[in-house]
Amino acid sequence: MQPIRMGMIGGGEGAFIGAVHRHAAGLDGHYTLVCGAFSRNEENNLRTAEALNVAKARTYDNWQFMLEEESRLPEDERMQVVVIVTPNHLHVPISIAAIKAGFHVFCEKPAGVNLHEVITLQDTLNASHSLYGLAHTYLGYPMVWQAKHMVESGQLGTIRKVFVEYPQGWLSANEESHNKQAAWRTDPELAGGSGCMGDIGTHAFGLVEFVLNDYVNALSGELYTHVEGRRLDDDGAALIKTKKGATGVLIASQVCAGEENALKIRVYGEKGGIEWKQMEPNSLVYRPTDAPYQVLRAGLGQAGLCDQAISRCRIPGGHPEGYLEAMANLYTGFANAIREGQTGQADGVPGVKSGLRGMVFIDAMLASAQSEQKWQTVSDVGTQ
Amino acid sequence: MQPIRMGMIGGGEGAFIGAVHRHAAGLDGHYTLVCGAFSRNEENNLRTAEALNVAKARTYDNWQFMLEEESRLPEDERMQVVVIVTPNHLHVPISIAAIKAGFHVFCEKPAGVNLHEVITLQDTLNASHSLYGLAHTYLGYPMVWQAKHMVESGQLGTIRKVFVEYPQGWLSANEESHNKQAAWRTDPELAGGSGCMGDIGTHAFGLVEFVLNDYVNALSGELYTHVEGRRLDDDGAALIKTKKGATGVLIASQVCAGEENALKIRVYGEKGGIEWKQMEPNSLVYRPTDAPYQVLRAGLGQAGLCDQAISRCRIPGGHPEGYLEAMANLYTGFANAIREGQTGQADGVPGVKSGLRGMVFIDAMLASAQSEQKWQTVSDVGTQ
Amino acid sequence: MQPIRMGMIGGGEGAFIGAVHRHAAGLDGHYTLVCGAFSRNEENNLRTAEALNVAKARTYDNWQFMLEEESRLPEDERMQVVVIVTPNHLHVPISIAAIKAGFHVFCEKPAGVNLHEVITLQDTLNASHSLYGLAHTYLGYPMVWQAKHMVESGQLGTIRKVFVEYPQGWLSANEESHNKQAAWRTDPELAGGSGCMGDIGTHAFGLVEFVLNDYVNALSGELYTHVEGRRLDDDGAALIKTKKGATGVLIASQVCAGEENALKIRVYGEKGGIEWKQMEPNSLVYRPTDAPYQVLRAGLGQAGLCDQAISRCRIPGGHPEGYLEAMANLYTGFANAIREGQTGQADGVPGVKSGLRGMVFIDAMLASAQSEQKWQTVSDVGTQ
Amino acid sequence: MQPIRMGMIGGGEGAFIGAVHRHAAGLDGHYTLVCGAFSRNEENNLRTAEALNVAKARTYDNWQFMLEEESRLPEDERMQVVVIVTPNHLHVPISIAAIKAGFHVFCEKPAGVNLHEVITLQDTLNASHSLYGLAHTYLGYPMVWQAKHMVESGQLGTIRKVFVEYPQGWLSANEESHNKQAAWRTDPELAGGSGCMGDIGTHAFGLVEFVLNDYVNALSGELYTHVEGRRLDDDGAALIKTKKGATGVLIASQVCAGEENALKIRVYGEKGGIEWKQMEPNSLVYRPTDAPYQVLRAGLGQAGLCDQAISRCRIPGGHPEGYLEAMANLYTGFANAIREGQTGQADGVPGVKSGLRGMVFIDAMLASAQSEQKWQTVSDVGTQ
Repeated sequence: MQPIRMGMIGGGEGAFIGAVHRHAAGLDGHYTLVCGAFSRNEENNLRTAEALNVAKARTYDNWQFMLEEESRLPEDERMQVVVIVTPNHLHVPISIAAIKAGFHVFCEKPAGVNLHEVITLQDTLNASHSLYGLAHTYLGYPMVWQAKHMVESGQLGTIRKVFVEYPQGWLSANEESHNKQAAWRTDPELAGGSGCMGDIGTHAFGLVEFVLNDYVNALSGELYTHVEGRRLDDDGAALIKTKKGATGVLIASQVCAGEENALKIRVYGEKGGIEWKQMEPNSLVYRPTDAPYQVLRAGLGQAGLCDQAISRCRIPGGHPEGYLEAMANLYTGFANAIREGQTGQADGVPGVKSGLRGMVFIDAMLASAQSEQKWQTVSDVGTQ
Repeated sequence: MQPIRMGMIGGGEGAFIGAVHRHAAGLDGHYTLVCGAFSRNEENNLRTAEALNVAKARTYDNWQFMLEEESRLPEDERMQVVVIVTPNHLHVPISIAAIKAGFHVFCEKPAGVNLHEVITLQDTLNASHSLYGLAHTYLGYPMVWQAKHMVESGQLGTIRKVFVEYPQGWLSANEESHNKQAAWRTDPELAGGSGCMGDIGTHAFGLVEFVLNDYVNALSGELYTHVEGRRLDDDGAALIKTKKGATGVLIASQVCAGEENALKIRVYGEKGGIEWKQMEPNSLVYRPTDAPYQVLRAGLGQAGLCDQAISRCRIPGGHPEGYLEAMANLYTGFANAIREGQTGQADGVPGVKSGLRGMVFIDAMLASAQSEQKWQTVSDVGTQ
Repeated sequence: MQPIRMGMIGGGEGAFIGAVHRHAAGLDGHYTLVCGAFSRNEENNLRTAEALNVAKARTYDNWQFMLEEESRLPEDERMQVVVIVTPNHLHVPISIAAIKAGFHVFCEKPAGVNLHEVITLQDTLNASHSLYGLAHTYLGYPMVWQAKHMVESGQLGTIRKVFVEYPQGWLSANEESHNKQAAWRTDPELAGGSGCMGDIGTHAFGLVEFVLNDYVNALSGELYTHVEGRRLDDDGAALIKTKKGATGVLIASQVCAGEENALKIRVYGEKGGIEWKQMEPNSLVYRPTDAPYQVLRAGLGQAGLCDQAISRCRIPGGHPEGYLEAMANLYTGFANAIREGQTGQADGVPGVKSGLRGMVFIDAMLASAQSEQKWQTVSDVGTQ
Repeated sequence: MQPIRMGMIGGGEGAFIGAVHRHAAGLDGHYTLVCGAFSRNEENNLRTAEALNVAKARTYDNWQFMLEEESRLPEDERMQVVVIVTPNHLHVPISIAAIKAGFHVFCEKPAGVNLHEVITLQDTLNASHSLYGLAHTYLGYPMVWQAKHMVESGQLGTIRKVFVEYPQGWLSANEESHNKQAAWRTDPELAGGSGCMGDIGTHAFGLVEFVLNDYVNALSGELYTHVEGRRLDDDGAALIKTKKGATGVLIASQVCAGEENALKIRVYGEKGGIEWKQMEPNSLVYRPTDAPYQVLRAGLGQAGLCDQAISRCRIPGGHPEGYLEAMANLYTGFANAIREGQTGQADGVPGVKSGLRGMVFIDAMLASAQSEQKWQTVSDVGTQ
């Protein structure tokens, strides 16, 4: 089986997330990196290409040129999928151009910086034969699929409550003064209208909708900025309601001093509850109302797992898989979709709808934070 | 040292919380039970008295009679403190009568069923020489004092965020149809205007104000009732703001299927965060921004503990103390206060102000849940 | 129900374990302290008595005098049970004298300092109408009974392996130079022939035999002394074999720097395994071979618990009980036995056989540590 | 940078460990798979090759042929390193042949099936310019390096105790009757003289010597076989002593029902202790004697980590890395060594000495289990 030819935009030396995507794409052996426009800095671009064994001829100065040139190569040689790991404001422009040029797109989240442009992206995608994948990495964890399965199968009964939280501490101080990652994430021109909610709130929100197989349709939220001079929110929370009638709380914060990436979701139904923590991703706590609590464990051959969970494990239980494996599950799903000739949305991989929902969430949070009314409707864009 | 002569109202056979108070009072040996009106059921009353070695002559048919009769006994024989473990609606009437009769009062929480009556109670107390203690048991845990100390000492810097939650699952189904404990707790005549917030939300709220040494002055909350036919809320959450400028979230629910008493508080300041869980009460996680996280541990001789924490431990670390020891710490503080002739509020023991704050919280939650406005002011009653 | 009249030998101000026994005896209200010989230091003795509200007339200079004088009191006034909390070398002499004087005995462990004297104690006891209880406190935890139940009921299948460990760190340095507790525990005249094995190894050993309902019949062990000048072992380990055919490992150490009282037992059978940790005593992990692992939880009303476990809980799950409650379970079992007129061994409370087994274990460890042969037989004394 | 050309022997469809090696080799992008002899089953061999995009021309019927043919290819085309993932009995024969043919070798552990053949392998290696790496995967975890660093730097003081354990449950029943992985692991012809000790005991042993930077020089052990008809040990334990004077216990078992891969090491010195668990590999507990315990956490930018640990992390803390990343650390170290022209032993990667130590350990366990003498010397082969 030929590996899929992948190009990368962004991800030059010093850029964190590009390397993450390359590790994830490499893990299962489905991809080969054939070209890139890694950095606008020429030296960085060349150094990165060399380190990654990308031919000089296919190392491009800018992404427009890369799309053009690659389009001209013979079909069995040119890039098949472009991976976008630039700051947020370029996600949609590159995605649209790439789709129009006939490429598949796998994009770091968020899909874009506002709802309008992501709707345009969706229209472009719908009019194409391309696939579009969005790196909502946490949706690649096996036990997140197991959680979804337990909700869908009715094991918990009607869902009443959902609590999701994503506390981080890395922006507790004025990190943006000296850290490039922090700088663009707190710059509205590059990151979009929200800092914390755009960066990690969308993960929490997406996890809720994914696990519940439901949509948040109203929220009552507040946003805060704790560090002097910071230009975007670094913290916030909301009461939430879903279409099917569950209620709950969403918390996302980048000023929870000392916290790493403590994303956690709890779901409670009439007959039981479940709990999953990203930092201990191979366990899923299941609390029935009438028996001792259980801990379901990821891994090949483990008892009690659904097919969707097992198919996202590589090794038997007790040898932990982690974040890169979760992202690799998205990459592998995307590779399968390419090979099977799927279009639009790849089976089992977050796509443009997830992108729309993220935008809708950010808009609702921004509106609610400005409002004195308690409840803010969350648009149903992306739910059909 | 003579033990303090204690009487008990409520707590007959089958009543859960009365036994808890007796265990707690017995643990440190400061009390002796000399009289009681344990149940309106005569047989239960007598059986309970006998089991507890209370003389028949001092086993009373009702609480009014008990207060009267005990008042007539010689000073060195009569009851010194009355413990009230009845349903909520009797807390204030008995407390006031007991104080007027010259007794000290140690009352199961909540202080009463509405703010008005607790203000009257406070007035009565202020006009007396009695002490009044309120069983906010969680404020007796050593590591809660340690948490408070770390906030007060500035170790965390200015406090930004507080998240408190109290998920229980025991009312996930229609428990009140067959469980007496559940029945009165869901009956507005006996429990007051709120079910979940009155029963456990007040614990969460009280913990926030205690640990932060601050007051919640606004909240935006919702209340829900999930079980058909239930007459009071069994679930709710609120965004909160404090006087000193912290913000956060409070969650309390009795329909989190499978949860026990998972009360937890997290506090984050500019320089670090702390986390305490009632179900692992002997540990306090401390996360500085610039060093690995630490776990402070309860116990005599343990490193890093403040005096207030150590004085609430009985044994060296690694031999766990629990809930009864936490309540015993309140009882012991109350005994010390009696012996020292303190009046009104016993040092280190929650009193009528905690009771007022609980009422104020319930009122604000009820008002907010009815309102379409986002923010509801929380009264400052009880803050001076 | 009249409380049982208790006297105490040892346990003066500054002595740790005496207070522990008094807390435990007080918790359930079955005892009243009527007399004591708390310290050979007269002032300490009197101060302790006063603090504990023991009448001066029944505060005795020494234990011999106490036994004599109490014997002369009217039957309904005199002490019924004597609690012995002296250094080890006095355990047997006092126990024997007390039994001969007609009292029940509840003794801090170990039963004595050598097997010979404990056999004599057993003979004395057998010839009497007294009860003898031994404070193997860990055998009072509800989840230890649950563990025993799961083994006995065959839920785990034939037992193959048992691993028990008791790491402590408090003797990592030369504590005995300034800490009285450490001083006598490392003095062969007062503690007996072994330090670590006598003090905590016996707990580990006793837990194995209790949970497995089986006897260790051979061991291969080593003892070490890590701190210069220390006169007894502070560390050791052994391979072990049981009569029914299980094998395993026993570890006990007082130089595991930083450890508190991390007693832990794991048992594995053909069909499943269990794990219990003293520092998280309300949980019992159960690992079946063919299903996700479960965590059984202590507490009234909790699912899956045997009667023996439930009867040792006071409060619903999620409000932790701890070490003092475990010891209180022994005291309550002992009170029940007194009231029911049992003799020799109190139902559900460790007695002289546990004491014999502890001695046999120490002897075997000392012999094995001296031997170049691998396996040392463990005597079957105490198994009938 | 050109990827290193890798060939694989073994690892056909259905063979677990081959896939693991391919994931690990792919993660960091340093390797490209150019040839293989994946299975003696022709169909399997071809199918595997096709799935992995290995050219038919370089898919070989057997390993001898592969070594021969690859040797004949031009230097810049032929395989540089051969990965050996066959059953144990072929490890040495293939390794020696490959080294003689001028290839580097990266071999699944154990190095061989007896000490003699591994000594021959060492001699062959020493006479060559090849590198030899051994997949002691656990030695690739960052926090294992951190543990080693804390021991070496003296932070714990003189080391007194080491406890290592590796409980698994997967061989609790007669798995070998239907599971190919179990079948060869319990067959002395294919696995060598020990089952459990060869398969996982060597991991535990290697971890001790690595973390302590010390050698085990004596042990007193037992081996057991619990499942009827099984031909090799499935369980055992040993008391151990090290050259520098530490003592401790090693446990390895495949019949600990319900356990996954619960490898754990604890080390205690005069001044503190550390604890690491393979199933929570990103945390290292550090217990100083005089301060609260700390948890050091893996991840880029985390506080308190040594260079060796940080260089083995790919992503910031809180996004877990796992087992495949640990093995990838070995592969990356091996790639670096190839590129730098190292010979014999690759820096930071276990090599033939680790292989020798594993053999020496197995021999000592087998001898001790047969002996009635307590202590068995462990050969110092592999320590220079």
